[in-house]
Amino acid sequence: MAEREISQAVIGRLPRYFRYLGELKDRGVERISSQELSGMMHVTASQIRQDLNHFGGFGQQGYGYNVEYLYQEIGRILGLDKTHHLIIIGAGHLGQALANYMNFQRRGFIFTGIFDINPAIIGRRIRGIEVRPMEEMTAFIRQNNVDIAVLTIPKSEAVSVAKKLTDGGIKAIWNFAHVDLDVPEGVQVENVHLSDSLMRLSYMIGRYESQKE
Amino acid sequence: MAEREISQAVIGRLPRYFRYLGELKDRGVERISSQELSGMMHVTASQIRQDLNHFGGFGQQGYGYNVEYLYQEIGRILGLDKTHHLIIIGAGHLGQALANYMNFQRRGFIFTGIFDINPAIIGRRIRGIEVRPMEEMTAFIRQNNVDIAVLTIPKSEAVSVAKKLTDGGIKAIWNFAHVDLDVPEGVQVENVHLSDSLMRLSYMIGRYESQKE
Repeated sequence: MAEREISQAVIGRLPRYFRYLGELKDRGVERISSQELSGMMHVTASQIRQDLNHFGGFGQQGYGYNVEYLYQEIGRILGLDKTHHLIIIGAGHLGQALANYMNFQRRGFIFTGIFDINPAIIGRRIRGIEVRPMEEMTAFIRQNNVDIAVLTIPKSEAVSVAKKLTDGGIKAIWNFAHVDLDVPEGVQVENVHLSDSLMRLSYMIGRYESQKE
Repeated sequence: MAEREISQAVIGRLPRYFRYLGELKDRGVERISSQELSGMMHVTASQIRQDLNHFGGFGQQGYGYNVEYLYQEIGRILGLDKTHHLIIIGAGHLGQALANYMNFQRRGFIFTGIFDINPAIIGRRIRGIEVRPMEEMTAFIRQNNVDIAVLTIPKSEAVSVAKKLTDGGIKAIWNFAHVDLDVPEGVQVENVHLSDSLMRLSYMIGRYESQKE
């Protein structure tokens, strides 16, 4: 299949295309040209054509792209036509914020369980799901066909919990802990390093101010 | 200054170097070779030498890098030697998670204010800071020398609030709303699009499974 050849850079841009196409679809737009999409996304029309041509035959000269088809196709490439069962490790503010983020459910990510070490939180319900003790995590993964674990715990705990998760058979970790995880081959990790992101912002402020001087 | 010439790709990697150097420093390590750093960071030693050579004269053949010096220097390039005043827009779970993230304070990001539209939350204190009504936001930015606004509100509100923030003189927006913001020239935006990140993870799971077949 052609999609295996697609570069990481293109893949990295697909969720953004998916988001814009979803908004167009919600607004009832049926077709869109690369020029129009370019104006909305602040990406050159030639970049858009190059990116979308990877998936072959979506655009028709003079007609533009079929929004619904392209939306479905990119969704399929991103694996959003499949259901993923997701657990959250850490029921603090970040864990709760993610549990409450309804959009995930819409995309096929089913919030299945949430775990914490704090006895004061265990037993509470978050979006109807009971907070369970960490000791139950590994068995829960096996019994509930869980693919994705979301790590929202401090970095001091993250490495050992990641080990338990991978021993338990998890396929993927969405890692918010401020540490890089070493995982066995075949386990996928996507990091959200918030401090790194804030530092990039700080860099951009400084660069702009030094250019003004 | 040489640093203006540094590519975005290198800049994007600096926070990660900063994080590893900070950990080495905390462990009392004074010098490190590019080979050792390579082993820790899973980046080739030649990439590390190339990246760090941009800053000139940090490494000495046979002696390795001075950890403390490199840490300070990268911190300076990232603007972490300066103080930034930061407000959070939206006192929901995500806003509270970010307010409670102590690391930011350590890096010179001072949590100065938090705003919400919900009367049930206004007046409560989060890390000693009172939640204020949105109407006070613009005056607060001016009076408190605020540089950075953190947007943790739904995308339906984000565009209009971003407009108020930039009219109010904000320098930078750390955007967690699931929408791209159009801001005037000179206002820096760093996006954390969580859905995009989760979709990349979903793609990686699917790719791995199709390769196994």
